[in-house]
Amino acid sequence: MAESKKAWGGRFSKPTSKQFEKFSESISFDARLYDADIRGSIAHATMLAECGLISKTDCSRIVRGLKAIRREIEAGTFEFREDREDIHMNVEAALVERSGDAGKKLHTARSRNDQVALDMRLWAIDEVAHVYGLLREAQAALVGLAEANVALIIPAYTHLQHAQPVLAAHSLLAYVEMFERDIGRLGNASCGMLVSPLGSGAVAGSGLPIDPDATARHLGLPEVAANSIDATGDRDFILEMAFALAMIAMHLSRWAEEWIIWSTEEFGFIELDDSVSTGSSMMPQKKNPDALELIRGKTARVYGNLVALLTLMKGLPPAYNRDLQEDKPPIFDSTDTVADSLAVAIEVIDSVRFRPDRIAQQLDRGHLDATSLADYLVLKGVPFREAHRLVGELVKDCLARDCRLGDLPLEAFQKRCGKICEDVYGFLGPENCVKRASGRASTSHRRVKAALRKWRKKLAG
Amino acid sequence: MAESKKAWGGRFSKPTSKQFEKFSESISFDARLYDADIRGSIAHATMLAECGLISKTDCSRIVRGLKAIRREIEAGTFEFREDREDIHMNVEAALVERSGDAGKKLHTARSRNDQVALDMRLWAIDEVAHVYGLLREAQAALVGLAEANVALIIPAYTHLQHAQPVLAAHSLLAYVEMFERDIGRLGNASCGMLVSPLGSGAVAGSGLPIDPDATARHLGLPEVAANSIDATGDRDFILEMAFALAMIAMHLSRWAEEWIIWSTEEFGFIELDDSVSTGSSMMPQKKNPDALELIRGKTARVYGNLVALLTLMKGLPPAYNRDLQEDKPPIFDSTDTVADSLAVAIEVIDSVRFRPDRIAQQLDRGHLDATSLADYLVLKGVPFREAHRLVGELVKDCLARDCRLGDLPLEAFQKRCGKICEDVYGFLGPENCVKRASGRASTSHRRVKAALRKWRKKLAG
Amino acid sequence: MAESKKAWGGRFSKPTSKQFEKFSESISFDARLYDADIRGSIAHATMLAECGLISKTDCSRIVRGLKAIRREIEAGTFEFREDREDIHMNVEAALVERSGDAGKKLHTARSRNDQVALDMRLWAIDEVAHVYGLLREAQAALVGLAEANVALIIPAYTHLQHAQPVLAAHSLLAYVEMFERDIGRLGNASCGMLVSPLGSGAVAGSGLPIDPDATARHLGLPEVAANSIDATGDRDFILEMAFALAMIAMHLSRWAEEWIIWSTEEFGFIELDDSVSTGSSMMPQKKNPDALELIRGKTARVYGNLVALLTLMKGLPPAYNRDLQEDKPPIFDSTDTVADSLAVAIEVIDSVRFRPDRIAQQLDRGHLDATSLADYLVLKGVPFREAHRLVGELVKDCLARDCRLGDLPLEAFQKRCGKICEDVYGFLGPENCVKRASGRASTSHRRVKAALRKWRKKLAG
Amino acid sequence: MAESKKAWGGRFSKPTSKQFEKFSESISFDARLYDADIRGSIAHATMLAECGLISKTDCSRIVRGLKAIRREIEAGTFEFREDREDIHMNVEAALVERSGDAGKKLHTARSRNDQVALDMRLWAIDEVAHVYGLLREAQAALVGLAEANVALIIPAYTHLQHAQPVLAAHSLLAYVEMFERDIGRLGNASCGMLVSPLGSGAVAGSGLPIDPDATARHLGLPEVAANSIDATGDRDFILEMAFALAMIAMHLSRWAEEWIIWSTEEFGFIELDDSVSTGSSMMPQKKNPDALELIRGKTARVYGNLVALLTLMKGLPPAYNRDLQEDKPPIFDSTDTVADSLAVAIEVIDSVRFRPDRIAQQLDRGHLDATSLADYLVLKGVPFREAHRLVGELVKDCLARDCRLGDLPLEAFQKRCGKICEDVYGFLGPENCVKRASGRASTSHRRVKAALRKWRKKLAG
Repeated sequence: MAESKKAWGGRFSKPTSKQFEKFSESISFDARLYDADIRGSIAHATMLAECGLISKTDCSRIVRGLKAIRREIEAGTFEFREDREDIHMNVEAALVERSGDAGKKLHTARSRNDQVALDMRLWAIDEVAHVYGLLREAQAALVGLAEANVALIIPAYTHLQHAQPVLAAHSLLAYVEMFERDIGRLGNASCGMLVSPLGSGAVAGSGLPIDPDATARHLGLPEVAANSIDATGDRDFILEMAFALAMIAMHLSRWAEEWIIWSTEEFGFIELDDSVSTGSSMMPQKKNPDALELIRGKTARVYGNLVALLTLMKGLPPAYNRDLQEDKPPIFDSTDTVADSLAVAIEVIDSVRFRPDRIAQQLDRGHLDATSLADYLVLKGVPFREAHRLVGELVKDCLARDCRLGDLPLEAFQKRCGKICEDVYGFLGPENCVKRASGRASTSHRRVKAALRKWRKKLAG
Repeated sequence: MAESKKAWGGRFSKPTSKQFEKFSESISFDARLYDADIRGSIAHATMLAECGLISKTDCSRIVRGLKAIRREIEAGTFEFREDREDIHMNVEAALVERSGDAGKKLHTARSRNDQVALDMRLWAIDEVAHVYGLLREAQAALVGLAEANVALIIPAYTHLQHAQPVLAAHSLLAYVEMFERDIGRLGNASCGMLVSPLGSGAVAGSGLPIDPDATARHLGLPEVAANSIDATGDRDFILEMAFALAMIAMHLSRWAEEWIIWSTEEFGFIELDDSVSTGSSMMPQKKNPDALELIRGKTARVYGNLVALLTLMKGLPPAYNRDLQEDKPPIFDSTDTVADSLAVAIEVIDSVRFRPDRIAQQLDRGHLDATSLADYLVLKGVPFREAHRLVGELVKDCLARDCRLGDLPLEAFQKRCGKICEDVYGFLGPENCVKRASGRASTSHRRVKAALRKWRKKLAG
Repeated sequence: MAESKKAWGGRFSKPTSKQFEKFSESISFDARLYDADIRGSIAHATMLAECGLISKTDCSRIVRGLKAIRREIEAGTFEFREDREDIHMNVEAALVERSGDAGKKLHTARSRNDQVALDMRLWAIDEVAHVYGLLREAQAALVGLAEANVALIIPAYTHLQHAQPVLAAHSLLAYVEMFERDIGRLGNASCGMLVSPLGSGAVAGSGLPIDPDATARHLGLPEVAANSIDATGDRDFILEMAFALAMIAMHLSRWAEEWIIWSTEEFGFIELDDSVSTGSSMMPQKKNPDALELIRGKTARVYGNLVALLTLMKGLPPAYNRDLQEDKPPIFDSTDTVADSLAVAIEVIDSVRFRPDRIAQQLDRGHLDATSLADYLVLKGVPFREAHRLVGELVKDCLARDCRLGDLPLEAFQKRCGKICEDVYGFLGPENCVKRASGRASTSHRRVKAALRKWRKKLAG
Repeated sequence: MAESKKAWGGRFSKPTSKQFEKFSESISFDARLYDADIRGSIAHATMLAECGLISKTDCSRIVRGLKAIRREIEAGTFEFREDREDIHMNVEAALVERSGDAGKKLHTARSRNDQVALDMRLWAIDEVAHVYGLLREAQAALVGLAEANVALIIPAYTHLQHAQPVLAAHSLLAYVEMFERDIGRLGNASCGMLVSPLGSGAVAGSGLPIDPDATARHLGLPEVAANSIDATGDRDFILEMAFALAMIAMHLSRWAEEWIIWSTEEFGFIELDDSVSTGSSMMPQKKNPDALELIRGKTARVYGNLVALLTLMKGLPPAYNRDLQEDKPPIFDSTDTVADSLAVAIEVIDSVRFRPDRIAQQLDRGHLDATSLADYLVLKGVPFREAHRLVGELVKDCLARDCRLGDLPLEAFQKRCGKICEDVYGFLGPENCVKRASGRASTSHRRVKAALRKWRKKLAG
């Protein structure tokens, strides 16, 4: 009977079924870990040599071999083989072919269990940095757009109904704040990644006199895992990253939703650039906000990936189980999806155009100054709850007359409340409302300009 | 300024951004719809000719051209282009290159909105049939294994604690029942697919005198969509399929979990074949049930895909939005994952070996016959709740003596309950329990054999 | 040491911890199963008597006792006790208190495992019927609104951009179609519920000579479970119900989204009734579509519940595990949430008012007749893809002139395409577009009226 | 026509529908926010007085009134009214009843939008601290159990197959590490909560001269929200908390799964206490690990809640939408569920008993010392990959002889590899393996004892 040709096949009496081999391979998706894998192996070999577990010569051969393999992979000349299962075994087998016995020593005191845990960490650290950069760029694009439209007033909405007038810049800065929290979350996730699991072996550490602290040092990782059972079965850092990405996608979906609505015929607040819009195969007049819709839609897969990862880990017995191989496709997909979405979002923001004429039409609707009028009454000594009721009735008067609050004659005001004088008109109209806004978070010109300055400085730093 | 080169680019003044083009393309994953797309287009062209909207000659040219394109795709010589966005535009553009004006007429009275809705239905119908076949094979594998071990008794578990003795065949047939419900769900999902959306156009139908019933007839679809707004934005059939697949994955995960536990050193009820097992890169003695673990783990992505699709549709305004393009990756992945998992599961089942010696050791533990003893007391006239209490105390006696119920001397029984006589031993021990099992769903030899005959007949049919 | 007072406490040496008792009780939420539980127990007792396992007198006592308990529960005088764990033990213990030994015999040949599986089925059958009724009412409300606005034309949207003119009735009927599919799904789920698991016992059936077919007959259930291991661990019917409810919630969320957008100041297509709207605590002018927002928002919990149920079952070893107790809160919540959402949706639909004046303003925007113009060109012999390009350019002309297609003079048309004549104007404008709509799914007056008649008849039936 | 009686009802002409009132109320679940709500209102009133917007007297009246209301709520004498919608309006309306005009001034420069955002933050801060405490207790319980069994060796598993021998303490400490990361995540989530949104008003801040920094100071919150649109629509902190709780639940489910398996008849590694176990209604011998199963099962609802929250926020337009009311039930449920699960877990851990006899039987199985043997070969100069193959073959020899590696005579070793000498036996057997373990994360006695000391110190601190 044919024997197993696998590196682990010593105790096996039969070769692996072809179908199962295809089902279980991961090289088709984990090849992207090659750089992390090779960096990890170089650090590991260096430590082995330092501890006297392999010779200096063997170590040099290994390092040279690994670097050559990396060059081949990057040149596209390396042959990845499905029957070698994963990136680890593909690299190791190629190394053995090149460096013989030296290569056979690389896996000393190591298991794929701690190796893949390391590879994923190294990979994730890089990707988080990439997404971080894109978030900063997106913030810069929003700040730029805000600066370019710094005096523009738009209606703010709650419940998608006209609420109060705000500066467009204030509205754009809301997303800058969201992305800032996203950056914080990436930072926290990143901290959790800076731990080297090497030395944990398969599950129980190694019986050989190794120095995991040295390996971590070679990799620039400030910490070493404290418990081998935990370290080999831990995917917390991947779930945290998947969650941080899901939050970014969620924020992007809120932004996309707003701008899809803003670019309807009915709102018409913005005009998207042709370069990020699409037409219809049937309707010749169409210009559709596909970029925004795709960003919104792709939130779905980023959520789905998080659910997949949570499901994967639910009830999984401790330490490594092969289920864990399934951690890769979802986190790879979430990372790529969010990065691409951010890149396109930046392009959309950079090329959008506000339409002040269309916006102006809406500022006259929906009694955006009603709250300002209630504030006026408060300043005149009317208890707020009473002021609220009075303004509600004045709004009803406007609805009956089909006019704005500012169009009501003074008598109409005074009929409802004798405390109202001529100075009431200084509280009405969008400009007056924005001018009067107060408090750190508010939409006043002063506050918004200060915020823009703060962000500009931060983004330059 | 360069103009758009897109088929829909008439009203556009700028070309599409490269980055957005890459972000929004779907040809990299919807190329697999080529056959459905071409079948749909042939039916559509035929109808157009029948209605006099294109000439017979144009129709022939179109059909010939489409068939040639299909041959090229299947031969691997067709060039899919990202700048042509999707399968629909890739096929149409290639057709125009081949057949000129005739090709330009294919999209008459059609939109990609109804076209893709049709393509997905045709694709889904085929895939559901494929998964159906695999479920039948899996049932056959289980029935075969049950037949080959028809007399084998194993402990049944609830709460993973020893419950009562059952036939191994009974235990295997539980999964046959689950798969039968899965087949029912696929059937229901399939029914929802047999509706032609063609004729719905972009959203409002077509203004040309078309005959959607004829198109449906050419495609072998018994029904035509009733409302164009609904039909172009409806993805119910995909969500239903995704759910049906999630249920299959769930059932597979329960089976995998049981067999992973059964193949531990401690249980040792089964031995998986070497051909579907894997070793460790570090621990030489290891033989791991990776096939089962991967099947269990892949449930995660199938769940994640369902969540992605539900998220996608949540709060989506009616009719087509570009978000809908994101329906494809999750449903493609769920389909492939479940099909592959079933194929590997069949291989695992076909090659597994029960270990009666190890099982026998466990039959003596955990007082599997306690319920049978309670039944005995009921037959002796003891109210069940009383009988339950008495047997509980007898079990305590056994725990104290570290023996089985059948090892207790008659006096020990009689001390607890005077109604117990010598015939009690006929109710104890696994064989006696199984023999006495009653009721349609129970584990008696008779019932299980009848069930095996029923399934064998059904699977043959 | 105090002994366990539980009905199952015979073999236990210690009482249950208070904290664990509270953690594990289900009576706080499964009390709502009381009617199903009692119906099931009556059928079971009747069968036991028929099989001679209990006497007729005991059976009568049991039935009388159970009915008395039901009356007490419905009168609100029954005391549910947490230390009796669940509805089953609460009812049984109360029965024993009332009828002594007879009550102690009720649980003969039964386990809570098959009992709760039955209770959930009986409960679910009733709830599905309730939701079915609400869906029919919602359809009737939509059809009524459509009939009342049968001639009203509105813009149809794809990508939330103006697409083509449609009848408002056509748009409303899209939801009637969605609810019809929801009804189909409920029907399919319902079929899966009509199976009696009684007789499956804890996991292996019963050793007593019972007649599960008789029990099923007494309950009006056409089928009996075929495999006891499967039947006691099967929750497919609950997941199917949870999925069917999630789909209803999804459809409701799409409707809510559309109507939230329709009721913005900018769209202004509808006016929601004050009775289903809410104001702001701060902004006196506000009238918010809270009913719609809550319906949209509640989709979230219905999705969450489905995910909870899927997660629950993932990798669960076969037969009953206590995890299964957690099937109840999510399915109860989804059922109530969807039922309440439908009831409020009906109220919203019944009280809404279309605003034809605001709608009319929008019909002039966005070149809704562009596709109709392309159809015109097709009828003049221009290949569609060519026609599409020509109309795209004509739309560009309109954008430059800020006018509608119908405002272009004939020369402007002819400059782009010599085949255009005076009759082109018969294809322009919303009325002409709707009139020309063709095909079963389209928005023509004829088709929509036929659809309304069909639905009216179906809903009356 | 009856007018609206709501506090916001000024501009409404009709009362709220009863059904909608019931559908939209939140007082049935947000009453638990009463303390946060009152604390926030006291801080707000104090700031209003400091800014001269209300008088000192009014402020005193308000504060007195609010404290009285809090006492009533805590005494259970406060009547919560559904028609007053939520906790905010219930408290405000009660305040107005008690303090008249003063009460009507409380809502000056405030909206429920910023109020509820604050309440949720204050509530969450407290709950996070509570869960933090429970995690620390769980760690202490695990450390205590580890200390009490400090010399006990058990098999470690990967793929649920015997891997290598480890100290039971090492295995328990893996969970201590997981909980430590959970604590870190709670800490990060907590940081995000320490921001006061008060002053953001409904969406645009307030037009009155308020001082949000003062309000924050009164509440002990170090930061004030920077953007009112963001602050009123931001629920990031709730999602982060929901995710952190989901991770705890996931870790608990892994622990529960392991211990469920450990308490099977077949493993028998632990004996759960009767006080946290349950019996069967039908099978008298049963003792089931229900506490563990429920903890595992409840992971499902915690995941479902996270999905609900993510779904809720997906595509939600910025600022407050009523959908946001649905943030409460899921986060309340996740918090309670995880807190209760931890409390029960602690009880389970504190009362569990290891069964060294049963464990010892398993240490002899599965060739747990194979990796140690490979290490031996490495030390003898055999390249690891070669050593792995050799040991694989020796394991095959053992399987053929049905013996342990340590049972092989020296010749058998030497037949496979001449480098093996008598000293090989010093590497075989569980004690030798554990003794040789090396590296910070490994299972050696020294490392584990050091870890126990570290944790004991940390937990004491």
